[in-house]
Amino acid sequence: MKRYSIGLDFGTESVRAILVDVSSGEVAAAAVHTYPHGVIDRNLPHSHVSLPPDWVLQDPQDWLAGVEVTIRQVMSLSGVPKEAVVGIGIDFTSCTVLPVTAAGMPLCQVPQFKDDPHAWVKLWKHHAAQGQANRINQVAADRKEPWLPLYGGKISSEWMMPKALQILEEAPQIYAAADFILEGADWVVWQMTGDLRRNACGAGYKATWHKSMGFPNRDFLVSLEPEFANLYESKVAGPVMAPGELAGCLTPAWADRLGLPKDLPVAIPIIDAHSAVLGAGITLPGTMLMIMGTSTCHMLMSDREVLVPGISGVVEDGIVPGLYGYEAGQAGVGDIFAWFVEQGVPATYHSEAKTRNISLHTLLSEKASRYGPGENGLLALDWWNGCRTPLVDAGLSGLLVGATLSTEPEDIYRALIEATAFGTRLIVESFTDRGVPIENIVAGGGLVKNPFLMQIYADVTERKIAVAGTGEVSALGAAMLGAVAAGAPAGGWNDLTAAAAHMASPPAKTYLPSPDAAPAYRRLYAEYCRLVDYFGRGGNPVMKTLRELKKS
Amino acid sequence: MKRYSIGLDFGTESVRAILVDVSSGEVAAAAVHTYPHGVIDRNLPHSHVSLPPDWVLQDPQDWLAGVEVTIRQVMSLSGVPKEAVVGIGIDFTSCTVLPVTAAGMPLCQVPQFKDDPHAWVKLWKHHAAQGQANRINQVAADRKEPWLPLYGGKISSEWMMPKALQILEEAPQIYAAADFILEGADWVVWQMTGDLRRNACGAGYKATWHKSMGFPNRDFLVSLEPEFANLYESKVAGPVMAPGELAGCLTPAWADRLGLPKDLPVAIPIIDAHSAVLGAGITLPGTMLMIMGTSTCHMLMSDREVLVPGISGVVEDGIVPGLYGYEAGQAGVGDIFAWFVEQGVPATYHSEAKTRNISLHTLLSEKASRYGPGENGLLALDWWNGCRTPLVDAGLSGLLVGATLSTEPEDIYRALIEATAFGTRLIVESFTDRGVPIENIVAGGGLVKNPFLMQIYADVTERKIAVAGTGEVSALGAAMLGAVAAGAPAGGWNDLTAAAAHMASPPAKTYLPSPDAAPAYRRLYAEYCRLVDYFGRGGNPVMKTLRELKKS
Repeated sequence: MKRYSIGLDFGTESVRAILVDVSSGEVAAAAVHTYPHGVIDRNLPHSHVSLPPDWVLQDPQDWLAGVEVTIRQVMSLSGVPKEAVVGIGIDFTSCTVLPVTAAGMPLCQVPQFKDDPHAWVKLWKHHAAQGQANRINQVAADRKEPWLPLYGGKISSEWMMPKALQILEEAPQIYAAADFILEGADWVVWQMTGDLRRNACGAGYKATWHKSMGFPNRDFLVSLEPEFANLYESKVAGPVMAPGELAGCLTPAWADRLGLPKDLPVAIPIIDAHSAVLGAGITLPGTMLMIMGTSTCHMLMSDREVLVPGISGVVEDGIVPGLYGYEAGQAGVGDIFAWFVEQGVPATYHSEAKTRNISLHTLLSEKASRYGPGENGLLALDWWNGCRTPLVDAGLSGLLVGATLSTEPEDIYRALIEATAFGTRLIVESFTDRGVPIENIVAGGGLVKNPFLMQIYADVTERKIAVAGTGEVSALGAAMLGAVAAGAPAGGWNDLTAAAAHMASPPAKTYLPSPDAAPAYRRLYAEYCRLVDYFGRGGNPVMKTLRELKKS
Repeated sequence: MKRYSIGLDFGTESVRAILVDVSSGEVAAAAVHTYPHGVIDRNLPHSHVSLPPDWVLQDPQDWLAGVEVTIRQVMSLSGVPKEAVVGIGIDFTSCTVLPVTAAGMPLCQVPQFKDDPHAWVKLWKHHAAQGQANRINQVAADRKEPWLPLYGGKISSEWMMPKALQILEEAPQIYAAADFILEGADWVVWQMTGDLRRNACGAGYKATWHKSMGFPNRDFLVSLEPEFANLYESKVAGPVMAPGELAGCLTPAWADRLGLPKDLPVAIPIIDAHSAVLGAGITLPGTMLMIMGTSTCHMLMSDREVLVPGISGVVEDGIVPGLYGYEAGQAGVGDIFAWFVEQGVPATYHSEAKTRNISLHTLLSEKASRYGPGENGLLALDWWNGCRTPLVDAGLSGLLVGATLSTEPEDIYRALIEATAFGTRLIVESFTDRGVPIENIVAGGGLVKNPFLMQIYADVTERKIAVAGTGEVSALGAAMLGAVAAGAPAGGWNDLTAAAAHMASPPAKTYLPSPDAAPAYRRLYAEYCRLVDYFGRGGNPVMKTLRELKKS
């Protein structure tokens, strides 16, 4: 009998389930459930309470409904008998957190709190805790907190600590009533299994947990706010376990609700982006995954923990148990190209694209592909949305140099693509220079559909780039977790490496670096680095001055 | 009886005559004659001889026909009796040169030479002598020729010496047959008066003549080419005189041809751009004229000769006798805005401009005028066409810094205008820092029609800017020369200051610097200067590297 694992991929708008053949990775069925209450950013559901700017919430019942609907649907669509299912794995957006009672009831379901926005789920892109984040970063830097360098010197307003501090400061009654504050992923697993566990991925990347050091200490919390002292002792308590470990088994009630065997293993979950690493078949050091979309996320594992400047985080057990998972990022990538297409392309190009029924991106890529590296005469710094890795500086901005009266839009488009590729090379070298090797690159995300862009990335990084073999990399990674939680004796796999070896798809396409392009790109990259140093490392703070002038 | 002077303005495509009331400057009549052979850049007239790239010629008979047609027309249109005309003045494009016989016959009219392109007039924008210019600049720099710093360290391929050397090297028989090589302006005056004179403006700004040092010496010429030794001794011989001095009087034949009195004074001519200084009413030190078009030309007089870096030239008697005339320039101004409107404005802006029946320049100016200095968050270097003053470096290129995902086209448009204004301030300071004072600025040229742009120039330079009162500044300046050649006893004026005081129009409009804008623009200008130093003065030669890469 074939064995199957279920991967549940909790996104921003919907949850997706896939039922995957454990031996081949083949997807037997897939189903999507769009959250009925969607992304809550104007009014609380069934209420007149309206939300301030930068507030973004979710309803946790939408998740549970999605689990039931999608799992019943994949089982029914595939005709697979329930006994053939060996485990369930979950990936989830993060840091998506909610306050709950000791029994696991979300405070937004407690009648006295339901009209308080702080009782609801704060979705990952809730940005209203920026003030708290700024203060945390300042105090942590002043105190030289040992965990701060693990996150490139700065934590994000999206993370656990700023979000929890915002609750304490703005709604102390909610903070007091919350027995636990936890990741959506961990709450869903708790509901399904009856066991409260924390996943090391969310804890490490978003809640400043370190396998040896644990969470930030009480003194630090007190220096922020005396009543914040108990954050990690009680609100964020619970064992931290690596993704793919056994979280628990389906409760009888949930087994009934899903039409699955009771005691079915459920895995410790993982963040969606990190699940993509597994889904792309990467479980060993040396291969970097780039998820290339509006921004780009770079993930990589190593058997060593080193401090790499400006990374988003390094977490032991964060992706694969026993390895250090590194995350880095570029703050703007596809966003920059979209900006240019929106703001910088003349009417004649719009007409041509329309007549030929192609996108402006395709048209510009085609025109820009007619010549080679350096022939546009331009160089850019890819900081339209600031710089994440390695400079961690949102106050930086975009630069273009080399423009002449004969510069054409495709020249600029190409320069912007090249700039983001130089930014990626800089990240690659940030790792390799500190002894974290990168031998291969795998790419996923929306931008991999542009072969012109992908070839430039291969040429600039001078590395082979494989495009991940499936679009569903995160859900597939989750299914691998389910298979590992089950273990080989039950028809799953004993570890993620074995799971990935069998379940990941081969690359859809591979881009090889062209030796012809290397000399020009090496020169341009050297110039790029010189501009990075000058404008980004204090040589000339003009970008800051321009932002100040704009504000004042 | 009212007295009149005729101003003849020889442009690139046509000659224009105006008949001007000497006491008031009022234009009694104007006429234009478009050259029948126009700008010759493909084939010689009535011939199958085709021209190589960068060749641009003219037919000298077009000029003479134009003199006759336009003067007869203004006399007839105005009804002014010929006795009321006191003099004729001429301004001309430069350096526009032709080889002629001792009798003044253009070699292109000598049957044996008529099919040789080198026998024709080389129009100012003939750029095929770049190789010669490069060599002249190199040799002059190596020899530390004393005249070189007067021209900012480099002469242009458009000037007399490269054009004459090109004739010698490529058509030695033409060089040998040319008894004289001279400016079109001087040739026309010679034809009309029978007297060969050289105007100090053309000689000084375009033929490296200096009132005390004379022309470059024989040794230098020999070091270029032994047969070039006689260039200044014979080919470019003849007295050099200041514009407005009496060149001679109309010959009887020309008096008949024009229907004017014989012996009518004809003035020593002037270059068209320099004539605009007079036409704008500037005859004294301290007021700078900007002629703002595709590029901008800055002219200024002083009673001192100092070396200002990167100016186009400083010439004693070059504009007004007894004063040193300075010329500086920005290589790209209106060209940059046109580039942006052509290459960088999205389709929605085109639609809006069309719907509202306004130009894209007007639309962008309107949108960009909604906020104040510094609020676009951008800064640019205005080097899309290289930098003339102060860096004299065509290898520089444009730069834009500060771009973010919320940057809009009008932000960039404004940054480009501001960059050219900073470039002008840098030129102003290049003069004032070296003791050449600039108290006032007068502006002419196509860009003065944009009030948004003009206000930025006033704000950035922190100086009042008056817009010249007439569009015909060059022709009016020429008419002033005619009035001065006539002299007061004959009903004209004794000097240019008196002529300008009566004949120049009051400013059409005046822009006052806004004190509110000064603090932001001072900060931005300081940042501009820092980028000028870094990218333009050796801090980071990336612009050169990008050009090299583009070529290779």
